[in-house]
Amino acid sequence: MADEDVFDVIVIGAGPVGENVAGRAVRGGLTAAVVEERLAGGECAYYACIPSKALLRPVGLAAEVSRIPGLELRGPIDTAAVLARRDKTVSHLDDGGQVGWIENVPATFVRGRGRLAGPLRAEVTTPDGDTRALRARHAVVVATGSDPYIPDVPGLREARPWTNREATSVQQVPKRLVVIGGGPVGCEMSQALHALGAHETTMLVRADRLLDRTEPFAGELLANSFQESGIDVRFGRSAVRVERPVPGGPVTVHADDGSRFEADEVLVATGRRPAVGDIGLETVGLEARGPIEVDASMRATALPDGWLYAVGDVNGRNMLTHMGKYQARVCGDVIAARAKGRPDDLPALRDTADDRGAPQVIFTDPEVCAVGRTESQARADGFAVRAVEYDMGAVSGAYLQADDYTGRAKMVVDDGRRVLLGVTFVGPAVVDLLHSATIAVTAEVPLDQLWHAVPSFPTVSEIWLHLMEEYGL
Amino acid sequence: MADEDVFDVIVIGAGPVGENVAGRAVRGGLTAAVVEERLAGGECAYYACIPSKALLRPVGLAAEVSRIPGLELRGPIDTAAVLARRDKTVSHLDDGGQVGWIENVPATFVRGRGRLAGPLRAEVTTPDGDTRALRARHAVVVATGSDPYIPDVPGLREARPWTNREATSVQQVPKRLVVIGGGPVGCEMSQALHALGAHETTMLVRADRLLDRTEPFAGELLANSFQESGIDVRFGRSAVRVERPVPGGPVTVHADDGSRFEADEVLVATGRRPAVGDIGLETVGLEARGPIEVDASMRATALPDGWLYAVGDVNGRNMLTHMGKYQARVCGDVIAARAKGRPDDLPALRDTADDRGAPQVIFTDPEVCAVGRTESQARADGFAVRAVEYDMGAVSGAYLQADDYTGRAKMVVDDGRRVLLGVTFVGPAVVDLLHSATIAVTAEVPLDQLWHAVPSFPTVSEIWLHLMEEYGL
Repeated sequence: MADEDVFDVIVIGAGPVGENVAGRAVRGGLTAAVVEERLAGGECAYYACIPSKALLRPVGLAAEVSRIPGLELRGPIDTAAVLARRDKTVSHLDDGGQVGWIENVPATFVRGRGRLAGPLRAEVTTPDGDTRALRARHAVVVATGSDPYIPDVPGLREARPWTNREATSVQQVPKRLVVIGGGPVGCEMSQALHALGAHETTMLVRADRLLDRTEPFAGELLANSFQESGIDVRFGRSAVRVERPVPGGPVTVHADDGSRFEADEVLVATGRRPAVGDIGLETVGLEARGPIEVDASMRATALPDGWLYAVGDVNGRNMLTHMGKYQARVCGDVIAARAKGRPDDLPALRDTADDRGAPQVIFTDPEVCAVGRTESQARADGFAVRAVEYDMGAVSGAYLQADDYTGRAKMVVDDGRRVLLGVTFVGPAVVDLLHSATIAVTAEVPLDQLWHAVPSFPTVSEIWLHLMEEYGL
Repeated sequence: MADEDVFDVIVIGAGPVGENVAGRAVRGGLTAAVVEERLAGGECAYYACIPSKALLRPVGLAAEVSRIPGLELRGPIDTAAVLARRDKTVSHLDDGGQVGWIENVPATFVRGRGRLAGPLRAEVTTPDGDTRALRARHAVVVATGSDPYIPDVPGLREARPWTNREATSVQQVPKRLVVIGGGPVGCEMSQALHALGAHETTMLVRADRLLDRTEPFAGELLANSFQESGIDVRFGRSAVRVERPVPGGPVTVHADDGSRFEADEVLVATGRRPAVGDIGLETVGLEARGPIEVDASMRATALPDGWLYAVGDVNGRNMLTHMGKYQARVCGDVIAARAKGRPDDLPALRDTADDRGAPQVIFTDPEVCAVGRTESQARADGFAVRAVEYDMGAVSGAYLQADDYTGRAKMVVDDGRRVLLGVTFVGPAVVDLLHSATIAVTAEVPLDQLWHAVPSFPTVSEIWLHLMEEYGL
């Protein structure tokens, strides 16, 4: 065992979250080490956000072309070309660029399995089996992310189901696919793989709709689109048994109504769990169960002396890459402020976005995006709510964008303060419209000021005008 | 001549602006008549915004397809299909739907040429030559829009040049086209017509760049795109003489450097002028010269007793459909408030958007959109400015959107107050991103609050994060 290496901050996990903690802490005048066992850049860069969008983009674009007379595609999507582009977007699973980014911060990149090893200490098991001891002067940050959750269905684990990793890194698209789960990952991967060759795609969705944490119409519009394209969506159905007698051979999924589905692969998309296993939490007196609870500065609330932070999926606040990166900026800045004796109670050093509602985007066709609370969440939280909806297809900018544009928007208003609590847009080409709502919701811009923010004609953004007129402005 | 018809409000001009004045005034409890000589719906619906976007959408979409491996178009754009879709978007020049909208307000639609006829009075020459007298109890609103400006170039008028009207209603795309002007209309129509068959397109641009009221990089990126696609852009060149010996035959445009260009049509896109001719301004003691000056409630400042309003292009504040519609909402509401004795000094009854900066979108490839002041305008206005730029192609969401995504963004900050004065985005698929900037600029959301508005990953909206990091947040 080598001597102890000392840094101001040690970050365990080099996903986008860990990278950003290090970047901000170093910008604040500290030294940092970032430890990663697998690929620097994390799940997002190689097996989640990036490749899934690379797979979905041509699918969405082909749908756009089908809605504009005068353009015609020369045949189906060329799956091989799409996969080749996907490979490029994930840098062919080479993390040299990401390691270079970290070293350029500058921070020290340590390749290996990182674990806590008592207060302000970590140890790293390097790829060649050595152990390296690290000590932090100010903070250790856990940014280990999350793992896919595999439900306890008899035969499922043994069948070696696909998760987001196998789906996004697909080399040979299975002809027959069963997808368990109707959340964002299940929806995105069903649509992408179906369009790229999984002609027989069946979704088993336990809830009575897709995307059951968003406004009901979002899941309904998406289900219409899926069903029109030939995806078989079964609502209220759970898998109860899975059989795969020959490894790599056909797999049979039995549902709770007695129906059964044979497929070439089964994809499990039933959520993720904070990755707290085998990271040494027991060495600092914490249990490796559930998310690591943190305060608004990302400091673990269980340790009174305050040197341990947890950022991103592992703290369970909001399992979205952009929210993890946001938390990372907060955390890196606050660690630097505390280390340097600067004020640590500035608004910038407090997570306000998680509370007011994080934005989320689902890159399906139609796209689904939302920020803040749904109407039912807002009512449950005790707000005096007034909500208005509008058909996005009736907006001039939308019907220029596409023939038969189908979409819907909703605005949830705190009627007392006349500020927005939440906004949902569903339709083609709305993902970058969402940021207008994110600003309005997060900064609590009063409706009477939003009224003077004029959407350009003829863009889809004019939905704002219609929503506000519906509200009575 | 029939008896005088009396309404609370008389609106001259049934473009989107006049329609919206009537809509808001009636909502406020008044009666209204709307007079229109040509098509209800106005220039925008038939000869400007709507058809130009219908022509541009397939062009932009084809460009998007060219940047995504795995999709291929079956050949060039089918111009006939695009023109047929354009015809549909302009309702085949039938304004029945728009007249229905007005009657549904409910307001009275009067077909004919409307003119002021003394205080609170108007007269209408109907299509069959009758004259109808109208009297307003509270207000007359001029919403006559604007006309294309044809510069005083020898031979130009005689050559019967195209304006936006002929370009957007094109039935047979000319093979050879000369475009005079490098502003929004010149740029949009050059790109659309070039892609739809005007293979020899030459632009004569007096300035040294395209779009010379926007940030310099906008025009530069657009010119690169034009030149790559084969449009011949000549900077610093004006037309000095035009010859068209045979009506409808070839036209020759002579430039000020002695060069000459033969074409099948010449399109003049050198701006617009308020339509104040022959609308009876002299009957109320005003000159028919230049825009009708108005205050922030759209009331003509020249008439002390305050019954005359001018809204939209005709007041010269901001010649954009959405700004005209916005002014119309302000004006309709303020007329109703004044008529009913309600307070007329509410923020909602004052145009604030024109002052802080109207948004503008140019639907070319790349798209160009901006709101508020450019850096040079902000400096000229005396602000303590700090401006930052960022390469949009370096945003993850952008390179997923398109291979070789080319674009640029700029944020102009009032460094003292830390609020945004202006934002410019140039690149594919940014038009609906603009509204986030419009809210930030118009509502003066402080940067330190914008910092908590987290853009979703991986969208183009993350440009916001990069801009703010560049600024030092």
